[in-house]
Amino acid sequence: MKTQTLETLFTDTLRDIYYAERKILKSLPKMIRAAQSSELAAAFEKHRDETEVQIQRLQQVFELCGKRAQAKTCPAIDGILEEGDEVMESFKGTPVVDAGLIASAQAVEHYEMSRYGSLAAWADALGMTDAASLLRESLQEETATDEALSTLAEGSVNRAAVHEMA
Amino acid sequence: MKTQTLETLFTDTLRDIYYAERKILKSLPKMIRAAQSSELAAAFEKHRDETEVQIQRLQQVFELCGKRAQAKTCPAIDGILEEGDEVMESFKGTPVVDAGLIASAQAVEHYEMSRYGSLAAWADALGMTDAASLLRESLQEETATDEALSTLAEGSVNRAAVHEMA
Repeated sequence: MKTQTLETLFTDTLRDIYYAERKILKSLPKMIRAAQSSELAAAFEKHRDETEVQIQRLQQVFELCGKRAQAKTCPAIDGILEEGDEVMESFKGTPVVDAGLIASAQAVEHYEMSRYGSLAAWADALGMTDAASLLRESLQEETATDEALSTLAEGSVNRAAVHEMA
Repeated sequence: MKTQTLETLFTDTLRDIYYAERKILKSLPKMIRAAQSSELAAAFEKHRDETEVQIQRLQQVFELCGKRAQAKTCPAIDGILEEGDEVMESFKGTPVVDAGLIASAQAVEHYEMSRYGSLAAWADALGMTDAASLLRESLQEETATDEALSTLAEGSVNRAAVHEMA
């Protein structure tokens, strides 16, 4: 029987977020195409580039742990992205779709924030200082993306979606 | 064909979080029983009481919209809770389970924070001031719960989980 230590939980969760980040990277081009506002499309493009770097950081963390970078199916991100697909389909081609896309992307960001936050705290507890720093870099990026999306929603996207109703 | 307005997106998302909150309420007793630390069990008990109030707030928001309170399957929360069940099973009865339970609960909190944040911003855009206030009350509670769980993890739970490794 496998010994169930905090290190095991750390590695399992690292594999979970590694799966999630790679799945998000695959989903972003579809979200970029679906966005009606060029500002939102640009925000998603920036986040696609950040996601590539976040995947590389996770590979560095695996390396620091002496483990092979390996993904583990993450039903949470599958569910979050499934809901995003549904919104994209239902509101396709209307300004409302941008409001829905932002909400979906923020659900993704928040999932990642929770995972990076837990992982960084566990890395601290395990004395893995370099891993903790890498994880906190990604945590800060996710937090900044979430805030930028809120600004975009409240600044223009939600207003455009209301006008659509008239 | 249904007109796809911001109001439709608001109602769909309200049904999504209504499903999520009710499912969380059902999951919390299992999490309370699984917790090894009495402090964590108490935090989950407090959150169970808050969740009951959050469900009532959602019912009030449905009422303000003139809609029947109705849940819509939310694959995101299903996925998040499925991962939580897996952690509870794998680390059952060890101090590591508490670290895993906190991470699962924080993934739940972050999902809810993202949904309440989007809903409150849409309520603002739609001029639904009372609904926006109710949604922001729940948002603030979820944020406070998330912070309290981080404090608990970093204060004692993660350290106890590391000692388990020795």
